Amino acid sequence: MILILRTDAGEEEIAEVVRRLEAEGLRAHVSRGVERTVVGVLGHDTERAYALAALPQVEQAVPVKHPYKLASREFHPDDTLVRVGEHVVFGGQQVVLMAGPCAVESEEQLMAAAESVARAGGTVLRGGAFKPRTSPYSFQGLGLKGLELLDQARRRYGLAIVTEAMDEEGLRAVAEVADMVQIGARNMQNFSLLRACGRIDKPILLKRGLSATIEEWLLAAEYIMAGGNHQVVLCERGIRTYETKTRNTLDLSAVPVIQHLSHLPIVVDPSHGTGSWQYVGPMARAGVAAGADGVIMEIHPNPSEALSDGPQSLNLPTFERLAAELKAVAQAIGRYI
Amino acid sequence: MILILRTDAGEEEIAEVVRRLEAEGLRAHVSRGVERTVVGVLGHDTERAYALAALPQVEQAVPVKHPYKLASREFHPDDTLVRVGEHVVFGGQQVVLMAGPCAVESEEQLMAAAESVARAGGTVLRGGAFKPRTSPYSFQGLGLKGLELLDQARRRYGLAIVTEAMDEEGLRAVAEVADMVQIGARNMQNFSLLRACGRIDKPILLKRGLSATIEEWLLAAEYIMAGGNHQVVLCERGIRTYETKTRNTLDLSAVPVIQHLSHLPIVVDPSHGTGSWQYVGPMARAGVAAGADGVIMEIHPNPSEALSDGPQSLNLPTFERLAAELKAVAQAIGRYI
Amino acid sequence: MILILRTDAGEEEIAEVVRRLEAEGLRAHVSRGVERTVVGVLGHDTERAYALAALPQVEQAVPVKHPYKLASREFHPDDTLVRVGEHVVFGGQQVVLMAGPCAVESEEQLMAAAESVARAGGTVLRGGAFKPRTSPYSFQGLGLKGLELLDQARRRYGLAIVTEAMDEEGLRAVAEVADMVQIGARNMQNFSLLRACGRIDKPILLKRGLSATIEEWLLAAEYIMAGGNHQVVLCERGIRTYETKTRNTLDLSAVPVIQHLSHLPIVVDPSHGTGSWQYVGPMARAGVAAGADGVIMEIHPNPSEALSDGPQSLNLPTFERLAAELKAVAQAIGRYI
Amino acid sequence: MILILRTDAGEEEIAEVVRRLEAEGLRAHVSRGVERTVVGVLGHDTERAYALAALPQVEQAVPVKHPYKLASREFHPDDTLVRVGEHVVFGGQQVVLMAGPCAVESEEQLMAAAESVARAGGTVLRGGAFKPRTSPYSFQGLGLKGLELLDQARRRYGLAIVTEAMDEEGLRAVAEVADMVQIGARNMQNFSLLRACGRIDKPILLKRGLSATIEEWLLAAEYIMAGGNHQVVLCERGIRTYETKTRNTLDLSAVPVIQHLSHLPIVVDPSHGTGSWQYVGPMARAGVAAGADGVIMEIHPNPSEALSDGPQSLNLPTFERLAAELKAVAQAIGRYI
Repeated sequence: MILILRTDAGEEEIAEVVRRLEAEGLRAHVSRGVERTVVGVLGHDTERAYALAALPQVEQAVPVKHPYKLASREFHPDDTLVRVGEHVVFGGQQVVLMAGPCAVESEEQLMAAAESVARAGGTVLRGGAFKPRTSPYSFQGLGLKGLELLDQARRRYGLAIVTEAMDEEGLRAVAEVADMVQIGARNMQNFSLLRACGRIDKPILLKRGLSATIEEWLLAAEYIMAGGNHQVVLCERGIRTYETKTRNTLDLSAVPVIQHLSHLPIVVDPSHGTGSWQYVGPMARAGVAAGADGVIMEIHPNPSEALSDGPQSLNLPTFERLAAELKAVAQAIGRYI
Repeated sequence: MILILRTDAGEEEIAEVVRRLEAEGLRAHVSRGVERTVVGVLGHDTERAYALAALPQVEQAVPVKHPYKLASREFHPDDTLVRVGEHVVFGGQQVVLMAGPCAVESEEQLMAAAESVARAGGTVLRGGAFKPRTSPYSFQGLGLKGLELLDQARRRYGLAIVTEAMDEEGLRAVAEVADMVQIGARNMQNFSLLRACGRIDKPILLKRGLSATIEEWLLAAEYIMAGGNHQVVLCERGIRTYETKTRNTLDLSAVPVIQHLSHLPIVVDPSHGTGSWQYVGPMARAGVAAGADGVIMEIHPNPSEALSDGPQSLNLPTFERLAAELKAVAQAIGRYI
Repeated sequence: MILILRTDAGEEEIAEVVRRLEAEGLRAHVSRGVERTVVGVLGHDTERAYALAALPQVEQAVPVKHPYKLASREFHPDDTLVRVGEHVVFGGQQVVLMAGPCAVESEEQLMAAAESVARAGGTVLRGGAFKPRTSPYSFQGLGLKGLELLDQARRRYGLAIVTEAMDEEGLRAVAEVADMVQIGARNMQNFSLLRACGRIDKPILLKRGLSATIEEWLLAAEYIMAGGNHQVVLCERGIRTYETKTRNTLDLSAVPVIQHLSHLPIVVDPSHGTGSWQYVGPMARAGVAAGADGVIMEIHPNPSEALSDGPQSLNLPTFERLAAELKAVAQAIGRYI
Repeated sequence: MILILRTDAGEEEIAEVVRRLEAEGLRAHVSRGVERTVVGVLGHDTERAYALAALPQVEQAVPVKHPYKLASREFHPDDTLVRVGEHVVFGGQQVVLMAGPCAVESEEQLMAAAESVARAGGTVLRGGAFKPRTSPYSFQGLGLKGLELLDQARRRYGLAIVTEAMDEEGLRAVAEVADMVQIGARNMQNFSLLRACGRIDKPILLKRGLSATIEEWLLAAEYIMAGGNHQVVLCERGIRTYETKTRNTLDLSAVPVIQHLSHLPIVVDPSHGTGSWQYVGPMARAGVAAGADGVIMEIHPNPSEALSDGPQSLNLPTFERLAAELKAVAQAIGRYI
C-alpha cells in the first residue's frame, strides 16, 4: 500500500500517518518529492492501512499488490489444468468446444442439440435446468426434470455436462448430476454461494459478472479456492457498456489479461457476449485466436421457438459449420479442438 | 411487442411472421412503411413473440409495455407508503434520515453512532452484521453477535434497524431482529434470495445492482412483490461507470425516473455513491432536493480506524451538521425530516 | 510518479530502472516491501518516467500528482470568479440561472424564450446558432442569422448571451457577438479549438465530454488556460452509461469533485443530462443543492414543434415555476439566484 | 418512427397525435393493443415526428430505420473496396497490415520502424506528425517535419502512409503528403472536420470515438460521404468501460456488426484497444479471426524511450513474429496478408 499525501500536508500530519502505521505493526517509508510526500507501507497485511485514506491529509491509498493469492500467477506460475468428466481437460493444448441450449426444454430438443455437439467434435454439453431470469414471469427452467434429461444426454452421447446452480439447495442437486457446475454472471458476487462451491468437489465454471472488473472476478475465484476447491474455470461472457447493437460487449482482452495475472483456464461465451446469432461465429473464432481455452455457445434445433435466448442461439447446421472453422483457427495458433 | 422487419423482407416472409404469431394465439397488425414493414403484435402475453427475432427477416423486436406489473405506477397509480418499525414511514411527506456504521464492530462503536443518529433527528439505524466483501480475506462482520448489538441499540435509542441479509439462512436471522431487511447491490439479481424475501413479512430495502438498469431493478422488486411482500423501498447507491475519482457514480436521476415509472419509495445512499466522505454532504443535499424519500449514510466515531469503508464514512460531528442542512433543503421543497 | 515492479524483479532489473531514471535527470527512491519493490521517482517533470512502464520488470506506473496545474486548486487555492457580460458572475454566492432554446429557430421563438428567462430571474440566454448534430441530415442551425437574433434578444432583455462555436471560423464569429462561448461536449478534446479559445478574451463554457473523465475535463480547461484565457466555467451535462431510461447520466458528484480539485466554477445542464423534460426539474433542484454555481436549461415556447431536442425542453410556464423552486433551494443552502 | 403512447392516453389525445402528424405531411397508422396504443408514422422524413415525444401522452418514440444512408448496407449491398496508395486495397480478400510508431520522433526511429513493417509484410506505415494529447504539456508531435519524414519513409520502403489530421489547416498539409488521412477518436464528432474530409479526394481512416455508439460512428462516416468522399475505412480502437486493467476495451464485436450494417471496410487497433504491449498479439490475432479487413499497430525500436505510448508499443522483433502468426490466422479463415 502506498499513501499519497495532500500537497499541503505538514510535518506533524506526516508524523501522524507514520505513528498510525506503526501502531498497526506496519512500517512507513517516507519519500518527500518536489510536490508531494508519498508514504510506502511495509509489513504484512498492509491492507490495514487502507482506512487511513479517511485522514484529511491523505489524498489517495494505492494498493501495490494483488488482493488475490491462490488465483494469482505469482503464487502459482504454471497453468492449472482442470479436468471435467472423464475426458475433458481445460488449460492444456486442447480448446474445449462446449454447446447446448440455453434452457433444457424437452427430451427431443436436448437430444437433438447433444447429438449435434457430439457430431461437431464438442465434448461438453451445456443446458440450463434452473434458469436465472430477469423477470419473475419468464420461463424458469424444468428444474430437477431438466437435470434428469441432462444425465440421459450425457450417457447417450458421451458428453460431459455443465449446468447452473443458483443457490445452495440447487448446488447440491446440480453437483450430484453435473460434471461441472456453472455459477452465473448475476451470482458472481453471491459470496454465500461461492463459499458453498468451495466446499464441493466438482469443477466450477465461473462466469464474469455483468460489470465485474477482472480483479473482482479473480477475487470471486479466490472465494471458491480459499474454501478448498481449486478447480475453477473462468468464463468471459460480455460486460455491460453503453453500446446497444449488441446485448453485451464481449471483452476478449480478458483472455490475455487473465492469462497474465492468473493460472486458471479461461473460456469465452460469444452467445451472451453478443446476444445475436449472426455475430456468434466471428466472435467464437476471435475467442479461439485470442487464446481462450474453450468456447461455450448456445444452440437450438429451432431458435425461433426457444423458450429463452432464441435470438442468440445458433441452429444446428450453422453451429456445425462453425465448429469446422474453429478447428482451423485453433490449428493456426498451434492448438486443436 | 413490435417486430421491425428487414428492408428486404418479401411478402412470403411477412406472411410467415403473421402465421407464427397466429399460431401462438396472437394477432398481427401489419404496417407497410416507405422503407420497412413493421408488425404490431396484439393479444395477451405478447412477450412470446420475442423469440421471433431469431428469424432472419426480423431486424429487431421492440417491447411496448413494461415487463413489471406490481411495481408499476400504471398498475398502482398512488404512491405506496412503507412502514418500518413503529414510527417510520417511507413515501410520505417525511424524508427519512438513516445512518450508522458500515459494519457493526463493537458495542462502543455502535452505541456512539446510534446516539448520534438519534441526536441528529434520524429514525433508522443501519449497520452490517453480515458483510458481503469483495475479498474473502476482508472482515466479514460479527454475524449474530452484530444482530444482538443492533437489537440493543434499537431499544436504547428508539431507532428502527436496517441490516443486510446475504442468503436464506441469514435472512431468517435478520428478519427476526431487524425492522427492515437490506438486500445488497451484489445480490440484486440473486433471484432465490429475492423469492425468499417475498415470503417474509418485513419491509425490504432493495439496493440497485452495480450495473443494473432501472428496468432490471424494478423487475427485482417485482420478484419480491410477486411472492406476496409489497413492502419494498428502493435504494440508489451509485452505478458503475468509467469515472475513477468517485467509487461509483450516484445516479440521482433514478429518483425522478423511479417516481415516474413506479409507486415504490426510493432513497439514496451518497456514501457508497461517492466512496469519499468529503462528497457525501453535497450529494445527500442533492438527493433530498431531487425528491428522494430518504437518505442513508455511513457514519463512524473514528473513520480512520473503521474495519470497512472508513474513507467514505462521516465522523459524527460532520454528520450532525449535515443533518441540519438536509432539514433546510427538505423544507425548501415542502417536505420535512 | 511511482513505479511498481513485478514480484520477480531481480536486483539487476531494479538497478536498470534506477539507471534509466538517473539518465533522465530524475532520482529514484527504492522501497523494498515484503512482496514487491516500489520505486518513487523524484525530480521535476517526473512524467518522463511513464515510458518505463514498457520495461518488462515494471508492472505499473502510478502518477502521484495531478497532470493539470493552472486549473488545480493546489495551484490557485481561492475560488475563481468568472465575469460574463456586465452583470453576471460565476463562482460567487449567486447561482446563475441560464436558459433558452436548444437551437435558435426564429425571432418569435427566441424572443418568447428570452422574455421568459428575464421574467424568471435568469441572467444568461442560451441558444444554438451553429448546431453540432449527430446526423448530417438534421437541422444544423441558422448560423450567422442566429447570432444576429441572439444579439437582438440581448439588447431587448438585458441578458448575457452564450452560444456554441464548433470550429475556429465559427469561434471568430461567435466571439464577436456572444458574452460567453460554449465549447460542446463533442469538442471537449478538439485540441486545436481549445487552443484557439486560449487566444481570445471571452469567457468559455466548457462542457464535459460524453465520456470524459474529470481529469481529462480539467486538462481540456488547462489547454485553454495555458493559452492565456483563464475565464473558464465548467459544465456537467451528463455522461454516457449503460442506462437507457435517460439520455445521459447526469453526474452531479462532478460538482463537489471539481470544487475539491479545482478553483473553476461549475454549472449543471439537467436538460442534456436527462433528455426528458419531466426529469429536468428534480435534477435542476439537485444541482443547486449539490452546490453548482449555475444551472443551464433548454426551454421552448412549444417543445413538440422544436427543430431539435424538443423532448427535453421545458415549456415556458413550467420553467418559470421551476425557477421559483430553485430560488428556495439556493436560499436553503445559503446562496441566491 | 413509431410512437408508443402512455397507457392512459384517451381518444382525444390519440386524435391530437394523428392531427399533428398529418399537419407535417405524414400519415398515422394507429394500432390499439390490450395495454397500449401504438402509432406507426408513415411517409417520407418520418424523423420529423420525433419532437412529438415532447407531448405528455407520448411515452416513447422508436425509430424504425437507420439514420444513415450512404454508409448503410441496405443502400449499397456490396462490400466497398477502398484503395490506398498504389497497391493497397481495403475490403477485399487481403487483410492489410499497418504499423508504425505512435509519434514520428526522428529519422532514425521512423526508418527503423518502416523497415520492420516492410520486412514483416506490412503495406501501410502509420506515424503521428500532429498528435492530439490529453495534456497541453505532452509532446505534440513534429508537425510538418514529421510529414517530411513520413514522405521519405514511403519512398524508401514503398509503403503507403497514414497519419492524423486534427483540424482543417492540418488536413490540407496531411492530404498533400499522406495516402490516407486518419481522423482520431477524439475528433470523431468534430463535424466541421468531417465535412472538410468530405471535400478532399483522399481515403479517410475514421477511428471510433471513445464512447461512440456504432450508430454514431456510421453517422460520422455519413458526414464524410455526404460531402462526396466515399473512401472511408472504419477503425475500432477500443471503447471506454469501467475496466481498468486495459486502457480501453477493444470491442471486436464491432467487426461483424459493422459488416452487417454497412459496406465499409473495418480495421482494428489492438494497441490503443488494450494499452499494453503484452496484450497486443492475442488481440491482433483475434481481430483477424473476427474478420477485420486490417490491423493497425504501434511499434517502436525502443518502446521504453518512446515520447508517447511506449507501454503499448511492440518492439520490432516481437512485431515481426506476430506478423507471421497473423498470416497463419488469416489463412485459416480463407484470407491472406
